[in-house]
Amino acid sequence: MLVKEIGEQGLLAIVQRFCPPEMVGDDAAILSVPRDESLVITTDMLVDNVHFSDRTTSPFDVGWRSATVNLSDLAAMGAFPLGITVALGITGDQPVAWVEQLYQGLTTCLNQYNTPIMGGDICRSSVTCISITAFGSVNPDLAIKRSVARPGDVIVVTGYHGDSRGGLELLLHPELQTQLTANQRLSLIQAHQRPQPRLDVLPKLQTLLASQPSTAIAGMDSSDGLADAIVQICRASQVGAQVQRCQIPISEALQTLLPPQQALEWPLYGGEDFQLVLCLPGDLAQLLVQQLGTAASIIGEITSHPNILLIDDAEPSTVEELSLSRGFQHFLS
Amino acid sequence: MLVKEIGEQGLLAIVQRFCPPEMVGDDAAILSVPRDESLVITTDMLVDNVHFSDRTTSPFDVGWRSATVNLSDLAAMGAFPLGITVALGITGDQPVAWVEQLYQGLTTCLNQYNTPIMGGDICRSSVTCISITAFGSVNPDLAIKRSVARPGDVIVVTGYHGDSRGGLELLLHPELQTQLTANQRLSLIQAHQRPQPRLDVLPKLQTLLASQPSTAIAGMDSSDGLADAIVQICRASQVGAQVQRCQIPISEALQTLLPPQQALEWPLYGGEDFQLVLCLPGDLAQLLVQQLGTAASIIGEITSHPNILLIDDAEPSTVEELSLSRGFQHFLS
Repeated sequence: MLVKEIGEQGLLAIVQRFCPPEMVGDDAAILSVPRDESLVITTDMLVDNVHFSDRTTSPFDVGWRSATVNLSDLAAMGAFPLGITVALGITGDQPVAWVEQLYQGLTTCLNQYNTPIMGGDICRSSVTCISITAFGSVNPDLAIKRSVARPGDVIVVTGYHGDSRGGLELLLHPELQTQLTANQRLSLIQAHQRPQPRLDVLPKLQTLLASQPSTAIAGMDSSDGLADAIVQICRASQVGAQVQRCQIPISEALQTLLPPQQALEWPLYGGEDFQLVLCLPGDLAQLLVQQLGTAASIIGEITSHPNILLIDDAEPSTVEELSLSRGFQHFLS
Repeated sequence: MLVKEIGEQGLLAIVQRFCPPEMVGDDAAILSVPRDESLVITTDMLVDNVHFSDRTTSPFDVGWRSATVNLSDLAAMGAFPLGITVALGITGDQPVAWVEQLYQGLTTCLNQYNTPIMGGDICRSSVTCISITAFGSVNPDLAIKRSVARPGDVIVVTGYHGDSRGGLELLLHPELQTQLTANQRLSLIQAHQRPQPRLDVLPKLQTLLASQPSTAIAGMDSSDGLADAIVQICRASQVGAQVQRCQIPISEALQTLLPPQQALEWPLYGGEDFQLVLCLPGDLAQLLVQQLGTAASIIGEITSHPNILLIDDAEPSTVEELSLSRGFQHFLS
């Protein structure tokens, strides 16, 4: 059955099954924000054949990833999610089952964090596009901002980078998998299809900050790549950084898939890993990395000198400057 | 200059000029919600050649209308706006000036209500689409809901219906304007291109409710037509209605443009007038209509019998049942 055969009202009835009944059916949703907390808002649009394609992403995974993109932005502000809205532009020739699977993917990801779909919009479009706005709340004293990194802070990553790009490559070129174990293959594809927002990091950070309440934590998520995250934080904070090449955690699966020089390209510029990149005092950072375990790592430090350098203690002559220009940019091709 | 020539970062730099600098540049925007008020959230997507076209709508007006669509949904909940986010999917071949004019239209409408653009997203798309999410706040005791209309309530409309549809017709068929004065022509086109959300009604309602604090007011906006609004309220409240055909206020311009029988079709089913349709006790309704002045009117009453009837005291034999089926529905054509 196609979308155009059941019409807007028919489609709305299906979609509303994925929303708490008390929240939809009016002109807008009503929600209370915890007292003394600030509201945090983020929005992202995903477009067919730009952000996803039938070749590499099932409708379930489009939904899952759409949820993660937005929840990851909340996590990057230190905020816990309250709900999301979903605006869907869709062609009449899309199967109704595609829409149902999209919402199943969305809600399966959201349910892990007790986050409801609080409303939305559905309309006809010549290309399928999904626009999600996510709302969260944060104690304003604990908000993570890009602009508060200070010289002397160390840089922490919360997990592996590059695996999502590796998973995409396996989906596009299945012949590459021969060297990988089944588990390695699965872990890379999972990183691409079902990334998790790092909301689990927030309670650990809060506990650590309870002992040093006036510490500002800088950070953002690495949705556009690790290099982009570091550069954006440095720009916003008007500082520089030194990143130790050999400290960047790279999964065994990715190391198996790629020759060594290429194995750093994807972690830095691949994007869509949805890890957090945080800048904080070294003592707190060490405690955080211990608590997070696997793959979390201190990869460098913030400097007052504005250059953002990738250095390699083993090869001191190969200093590289990190830049935004190698990451993914819309419109340039 | 085209969008693809300046790229995503170039476009973001232009768009950020329309946002308060303290609100953008991080992963998400932070906002405080007035204490003891609830957050109200609504989202709408507009797609090129579905909701607007270069033939009838300038980019400035696309922006203006996008803002109104969302602020009108807030007004329909009794909520005052706090801010909006804008996600824009755009083709690389669109002129950069188109995007600038879009944001000029958005901000010109929003500035009337001191409402900032708090963030957003820009991405490549094969069709231009704009998804806006608006946030407002409301005292939960004063929220307007669809589901609380009661038999005996009267139905108030806050202004003329059908003018937006009339303005669209004039833009599509300029030869129709011969019978109209220049002012009439302008008022219809203005109703289509620059509709105003009826946020001005809310302070008047609040003042009236201060004298009768436990009165529930039902309502919604008439973005999908007057008939749709009445039917949706009746369904949500499990009541019926009797609407007096001759009480529906129709502008002189629309009456001049159309033969009498057609002059009711557009007010009922034309849509996009963005008026409020409210159900409340008769004494309050009369005071409200007096305060609103021109074109506000009591057009009928809520009944316990579930039928939704359009009646005409002059011709008691021509009772008509209002339905959703004649309004605009996406996907059905």
